[in-house]
Amino acid sequence: MAELFDFPKVEFIDGAKGLDFRTAKGYNFYNPEEEFTNPVTGETKAMKDWLKFSVAYWHTMDQRLVDPFGEGTAVRPWDVNGVDDMSDLDHAIAKVDYMFEFMDKLGVEYFAFHDRDLAPEGATLAETNANLDKVVDRIEVKMQETGKKLLWNTSSLFTNKRFLAGGATTPFADVFAYAAAQIKHSLEIAKRLDSESYVFWGGREGYESLLNTDTKRELDHIAAFFKLAKEYAEEIGYTGQFLIEPKPKEPTDHQYDTDVQTTIAFLKTYGLDDVFKLNLEGNHAYLAGHKFEHEARFAREAINSKGESLLGSLDANMGDKQTGWDIDEFPNDIYEATFVMLEFIKNGGLPTGGLNFDSKVRRASFKPEDLFYGHMAGMDVYAAGFRVASKLIEDGALDNIVTERYSSFDEGIFKDFDVASRKNEASPIKLADFEDYVLNKTDEEVFASVKSAHLEAIKATVNNYIYAVLGSTFAK
Amino acid sequence: MAELFDFPKVEFIDGAKGLDFRTAKGYNFYNPEEEFTNPVTGETKAMKDWLKFSVAYWHTMDQRLVDPFGEGTAVRPWDVNGVDDMSDLDHAIAKVDYMFEFMDKLGVEYFAFHDRDLAPEGATLAETNANLDKVVDRIEVKMQETGKKLLWNTSSLFTNKRFLAGGATTPFADVFAYAAAQIKHSLEIAKRLDSESYVFWGGREGYESLLNTDTKRELDHIAAFFKLAKEYAEEIGYTGQFLIEPKPKEPTDHQYDTDVQTTIAFLKTYGLDDVFKLNLEGNHAYLAGHKFEHEARFAREAINSKGESLLGSLDANMGDKQTGWDIDEFPNDIYEATFVMLEFIKNGGLPTGGLNFDSKVRRASFKPEDLFYGHMAGMDVYAAGFRVASKLIEDGALDNIVTERYSSFDEGIFKDFDVASRKNEASPIKLADFEDYVLNKTDEEVFASVKSAHLEAIKATVNNYIYAVLGSTFAK
Amino acid sequence: MAELFDFPKVEFIDGAKGLDFRTAKGYNFYNPEEEFTNPVTGETKAMKDWLKFSVAYWHTMDQRLVDPFGEGTAVRPWDVNGVDDMSDLDHAIAKVDYMFEFMDKLGVEYFAFHDRDLAPEGATLAETNANLDKVVDRIEVKMQETGKKLLWNTSSLFTNKRFLAGGATTPFADVFAYAAAQIKHSLEIAKRLDSESYVFWGGREGYESLLNTDTKRELDHIAAFFKLAKEYAEEIGYTGQFLIEPKPKEPTDHQYDTDVQTTIAFLKTYGLDDVFKLNLEGNHAYLAGHKFEHEARFAREAINSKGESLLGSLDANMGDKQTGWDIDEFPNDIYEATFVMLEFIKNGGLPTGGLNFDSKVRRASFKPEDLFYGHMAGMDVYAAGFRVASKLIEDGALDNIVTERYSSFDEGIFKDFDVASRKNEASPIKLADFEDYVLNKTDEEVFASVKSAHLEAIKATVNNYIYAVLGSTFAK
Amino acid sequence: MAELFDFPKVEFIDGAKGLDFRTAKGYNFYNPEEEFTNPVTGETKAMKDWLKFSVAYWHTMDQRLVDPFGEGTAVRPWDVNGVDDMSDLDHAIAKVDYMFEFMDKLGVEYFAFHDRDLAPEGATLAETNANLDKVVDRIEVKMQETGKKLLWNTSSLFTNKRFLAGGATTPFADVFAYAAAQIKHSLEIAKRLDSESYVFWGGREGYESLLNTDTKRELDHIAAFFKLAKEYAEEIGYTGQFLIEPKPKEPTDHQYDTDVQTTIAFLKTYGLDDVFKLNLEGNHAYLAGHKFEHEARFAREAINSKGESLLGSLDANMGDKQTGWDIDEFPNDIYEATFVMLEFIKNGGLPTGGLNFDSKVRRASFKPEDLFYGHMAGMDVYAAGFRVASKLIEDGALDNIVTERYSSFDEGIFKDFDVASRKNEASPIKLADFEDYVLNKTDEEVFASVKSAHLEAIKATVNNYIYAVLGSTFAK
Repeated sequence: MAELFDFPKVEFIDGAKGLDFRTAKGYNFYNPEEEFTNPVTGETKAMKDWLKFSVAYWHTMDQRLVDPFGEGTAVRPWDVNGVDDMSDLDHAIAKVDYMFEFMDKLGVEYFAFHDRDLAPEGATLAETNANLDKVVDRIEVKMQETGKKLLWNTSSLFTNKRFLAGGATTPFADVFAYAAAQIKHSLEIAKRLDSESYVFWGGREGYESLLNTDTKRELDHIAAFFKLAKEYAEEIGYTGQFLIEPKPKEPTDHQYDTDVQTTIAFLKTYGLDDVFKLNLEGNHAYLAGHKFEHEARFAREAINSKGESLLGSLDANMGDKQTGWDIDEFPNDIYEATFVMLEFIKNGGLPTGGLNFDSKVRRASFKPEDLFYGHMAGMDVYAAGFRVASKLIEDGALDNIVTERYSSFDEGIFKDFDVASRKNEASPIKLADFEDYVLNKTDEEVFASVKSAHLEAIKATVNNYIYAVLGSTFAK
Repeated sequence: MAELFDFPKVEFIDGAKGLDFRTAKGYNFYNPEEEFTNPVTGETKAMKDWLKFSVAYWHTMDQRLVDPFGEGTAVRPWDVNGVDDMSDLDHAIAKVDYMFEFMDKLGVEYFAFHDRDLAPEGATLAETNANLDKVVDRIEVKMQETGKKLLWNTSSLFTNKRFLAGGATTPFADVFAYAAAQIKHSLEIAKRLDSESYVFWGGREGYESLLNTDTKRELDHIAAFFKLAKEYAEEIGYTGQFLIEPKPKEPTDHQYDTDVQTTIAFLKTYGLDDVFKLNLEGNHAYLAGHKFEHEARFAREAINSKGESLLGSLDANMGDKQTGWDIDEFPNDIYEATFVMLEFIKNGGLPTGGLNFDSKVRRASFKPEDLFYGHMAGMDVYAAGFRVASKLIEDGALDNIVTERYSSFDEGIFKDFDVASRKNEASPIKLADFEDYVLNKTDEEVFASVKSAHLEAIKATVNNYIYAVLGSTFAK
Repeated sequence: MAELFDFPKVEFIDGAKGLDFRTAKGYNFYNPEEEFTNPVTGETKAMKDWLKFSVAYWHTMDQRLVDPFGEGTAVRPWDVNGVDDMSDLDHAIAKVDYMFEFMDKLGVEYFAFHDRDLAPEGATLAETNANLDKVVDRIEVKMQETGKKLLWNTSSLFTNKRFLAGGATTPFADVFAYAAAQIKHSLEIAKRLDSESYVFWGGREGYESLLNTDTKRELDHIAAFFKLAKEYAEEIGYTGQFLIEPKPKEPTDHQYDTDVQTTIAFLKTYGLDDVFKLNLEGNHAYLAGHKFEHEARFAREAINSKGESLLGSLDANMGDKQTGWDIDEFPNDIYEATFVMLEFIKNGGLPTGGLNFDSKVRRASFKPEDLFYGHMAGMDVYAAGFRVASKLIEDGALDNIVTERYSSFDEGIFKDFDVASRKNEASPIKLADFEDYVLNKTDEEVFASVKSAHLEAIKATVNNYIYAVLGSTFAK
Repeated sequence: MAELFDFPKVEFIDGAKGLDFRTAKGYNFYNPEEEFTNPVTGETKAMKDWLKFSVAYWHTMDQRLVDPFGEGTAVRPWDVNGVDDMSDLDHAIAKVDYMFEFMDKLGVEYFAFHDRDLAPEGATLAETNANLDKVVDRIEVKMQETGKKLLWNTSSLFTNKRFLAGGATTPFADVFAYAAAQIKHSLEIAKRLDSESYVFWGGREGYESLLNTDTKRELDHIAAFFKLAKEYAEEIGYTGQFLIEPKPKEPTDHQYDTDVQTTIAFLKTYGLDDVFKLNLEGNHAYLAGHKFEHEARFAREAINSKGESLLGSLDANMGDKQTGWDIDEFPNDIYEATFVMLEFIKNGGLPTGGLNFDSKVRRASFKPEDLFYGHMAGMDVYAAGFRVASKLIEDGALDNIVTERYSSFDEGIFKDFDVASRKNEASPIKLADFEDYVLNKTDEEVFASVKSAHLEAIKATVNNYIYAVLGSTFAK
């Protein structure tokens, strides 16, 4: 069969590494079959099974590179006369094969989609579902042929105009019913394609103005909506992990699932904390005023009643911290990749998640080869970050500093307090005991226990690790 | 006795209102004895008992108007040779009388302080406590004399260098002990002075870098610390409301009590949600990317197991949304005052809280009269906002819009769903029922249920209310 | 003839004012024929001739209320089967009549457009120009019929994909040629329709990454482009004012015309400072980290060699200072309107400019009546701000404070220095003279000359003016 | 003589490199005597003569690590009983020797100071100058002893309370006189110590509110002030380069020297563009919404009438793009160092400037060794960036992409246009010529000339260069 993309299969470059990324056309750091032992859990598996990269259907197959001030620029091999006519169901079905060849050439095993990425809408939901099912049929065939897997699917409750004031939080009952019915079918597809997770991103679940919004009622509705979805998943035997993807705003002025902590407050308020984990995205973290690794850390350390962390999956993209909107750039920052991978490794990887490229090429990078470059760059920088983070953990380069820094809590009355606090139990040592301990110490004595953080040296050490671990690949 | 401040007693201007604030020297909108009936609860009381304004000791009595690039500019009547020598205990005691005259002249009944605002530190905590107690003695006398009340007190676990990495979250055990002992004494003072609330602001309870921070262990420690504080309060019979004051950063890069929702996630994680309410500050909200009324709304709608809202108290200040640090400006924005007062009124006011001016005069407004102008401006704008918000609620000017907007949930299967969702109970109507309802409706039929928000008209209506309600005072 | 819009003609409400903006359907503050004397220049004319409000074709006639996450929601009377098919030239022509009825019903005399707002593109520029001319024909007829005037027109060098890397700053020569030819025709239209000004907004004249951009060469190109445009305008006898509209970013990562000062640096570098004035937009100012009144102040005080200020025209919109992208909301903030009007009045109004509503209704305000509400709200708040600002200036409420504050420069050696500095001439007084004056003064003596800014009182005074001036209209 | 700092002399590590920065105690990348040939200019000199690192007196010698919420934490070898008593002139003089030993141990040849960093103020300027001169005497001796050089000095017109509303832009004439006299003496010191440049940072030259500020008059004053300073420098024969250091805000709400372009507009407005170059700081760039390399690029490409670029000197620090205030962190970002060094190399280095560490250690890094770590980290990351940037330029890795991208302007009518535009001359080709060229081309033909930017691949190439160039040092 003729190749659909005019681009060679991308493979790990074993040996001399070219510096110009365009001519190298291979991975410098992503070596899918290379085995890695997690220095925290001891588990060993191949890099591809740790990192589980995923291609996003919407950005790769559907995104025309529009922005609010300009039309699409994308040139894609499936275009007919420069147009990607998604009102044509046959065309929509034909595109599926491009998706699978793209994954194959990249060496990626997972993909992700919204329902509305795949097929045109009909005049009723019944018709829309019928269209969708035809494309899903083709996807199912291709999955069986190729062994590719669905990392997660989701429902678009934000694109169609009916959702202008939300899907599960809309003030309009018919729209709510539509959203409920749409999710039902998405869950059926998740079951059919054995999706590892199911994602909820509430792009319009928020408010534009507090003046006309009953925030409490809207939150009550969406909590109930989530419970109905879970009930239905159980009913049909779909066991994938439910994930919420936080974002603070855009398109709304305020989105309810603002960030990790806000989402946790919501889940606990409505008793949903054992149902959902989180799908974190880099650029969304920035918009919330956080770093990606911050969100990853706090999701990882939030433990549900089953003893599992809430760090479920990652949308691997980045943005520009000085740009106030979501640009969904392919990742290229080795610092961020390293810091996120530190959390990833300590999490034991992402058992039911992966690294999905919710990333799009820049509007000026409009050629098909740019789809490859973008994914290759993203895979290489996360594989690089994984290597650096593994080495940092193996060497205890940061962890030893942390352990030493808190060591005064390992002794005396502090130990009793520390142990109780970690178990969230009543402390056997009381305020009065601490007062007895400290009341007549001089200020100098107390301050003598404070150690310098040496933060400048710690950050420079991280630089050294990056250069040393990654430079060695070019030194061969 | 000679007056300490050369400024007349500030009173409500009944009749002709001057427009120049400097010459008017009275309140246009704050009429302390005027009675107001809460249009939501029906409760009637005087304006002063609704608004409960409070003077902050630190900004009014101690703030020298320094900033990171310049020395203090303040000129204060208690200065000796241009200096406010707080290492002199007698001087610290003498300042108390200025505070009470200031409150008296303003017509304010409440005040608030940190322990370290009042008295110099000694060489040991024992000595420091002794100093502090002497100033508290004088405060107690003045409270009895004047009937003024303590809105809240708190402990500074951030100024002294020993707290450079936190108080309750410090990695250094001796510093933790010091913080615990310090809080103990602060609670004793709260008991003694009958403080309505007790505030925890964790200025350094956060991290500067994730690289050297055990975030989980630190959160375990502070949760235990809070529990010890609560136990001790119960032990000594102090029944004031515990409050956490959220702030996202500054001085730290990340503060654990980031905003309302983050704090709720923390409280629920550690089972503290019935112990604490929240003390919200305008400028802190901005730094977290929120509006003040957003924080007020979400605190108000968070209900603990006793059926009480978590909206406990307000730090009435404002900032500049384009300035990335806390400027603690006196409030002067009638929009913000109105929107916050909408939440306040719906909350039934603040039973154990008030409006504390955590506000400082600009560094160029360095004269004693500016302390008056700042407080007067803040009191007048919140009294004005209270009047506008009351009228908006009485007229249903916004609430009718909201009720109408969600009215489609009051019927049919939606009603059953809506009622169950509001009670956080299982919905009797399932996804399949919603699918049945909508599956064959046309998209046009569904969209026909969507109503325009008319947001432009709603915002213009608020403007009309502001002009009409407040302009009438000048039209007399 | 049947009315195209089902909305009554909007008029000034003389007498009892309703507070609910939706039911009032009239202006509370915009009284077009009311005469105002500029307190600075003494010129008297009707409010409509001062404020010169303008409807923007793109937002009102073409904007479908899409956003990056959703399709259009707009319902418009000219839609056919819910679609505004701009590929149909007859449809495009028919829309012109809606525009003029809309202006008529609002009582607005001016409008503004981009070339591509009006007509569909053809396969070549020649065809595109031919389409455009047919719509312009109809506009010309309607202008003659109604007396409406063109405030400004402009060219879209950002929507078509060919402009993905800029129009005048594109790296691709053919695209540059296209942009040059397109501007040529736009200038011909400006001449034909007697446009008061001609605007350049360089939406893609900037960079996405410094790594692949020759910034100097791009700026050389655009400067030459501007000169060619000016030459051509002179050649055809078009004498309207050229305007640059600054914006710092979006869609690009960095736009060359960042803000007022950056644009001035550019104009001076290339000797264009007598050719261009500035068209300022509120939301653009925010994105640059400024307030709208800041940009207005600095444009007003920048004087070209003809002695004219660079404050040429205003795009009257607003945004949300906590939202990092351009939302182009209709203005509704009385503070901003007042502060911008202070600059406007001191500028003697805008002789060749006006207040163009580069504003769109919210995506949830999707009905035709919202187009009216939005414009009415914007007109009323700027008319209100104009009234407050006039009164503030008449009373000297702020200006007297300013004059007094700098009065020490009106005496002695300071006067000589001050006069020379204002003329940008050499000071007769030198550093050594100042040293002689101050060398042996004590620090206390020097500080005694510093006066308090009383900023808290000044801001509260502005509040009083707003309430008093605007409230009186409701008090009748 | 006993060593003042208990830290070894820091030297280049030739051979095996340790990854832990704290134990290595040497430079991995800064090799002062290694010769480098500038790939743009061809000039060859030692690394130390290219990079010209400088220690800032204020951050290193005086900064006590206070912040707005806490007292100083610094522990310094010159402290007496934990106090750095700068009211003691002898102490101030004694500190000079610490400064020079610190520079010597680091291997840094330059330093920088504000006048008020050095000595206590007296009761009059005369006394203050006398104090200052005594410390400068000691500095002069140490400079002669050691050969260390003064990169620049400056005057603090922002710390003392008299400057609360500015120094050169103060509304108070006596304060202006004081500022003028203070600068006079600073220029005398610059002459005496042969300072390579003289810096003006206008920390309070801006406004807190437009309502009480005559911005035009203030700008007139500061322009005249600058001219007086230049006249006096000429009078005393001081020939160092004058530099303005832009910053957008903090402590003021708006600082006049906002960023590079704003400062250029000011300089051109007042005819000062041949007098001043710019001193750029990383964290200041962020606060203005820019990247450091953006400011460097635009300063480098701004050419004065002498044909020199305005890129005069660099304050090498960084901040956090998500933190809204100036944190002055030591640089540790290899991307920023590389991108700034690209501009630096193309500028031919900084003939009269250098890389001054306007950087302070974190408040929790309070020990003397942290002063070393901070500077070492900063020197190493800029030396590393210098190496990467040199290699990128030598290989044409980015420049070839740029040249190719614009190559269509090198032909036909475009060449004539391009040449004229680069010379800022009239184009021989007019709008009509471009119209002729493009009018009947199809849109497809025009779009065919547009090339993909391949930005994803370009950024990944930069990563490869960083790893390969820097990793090799560890591979030895």
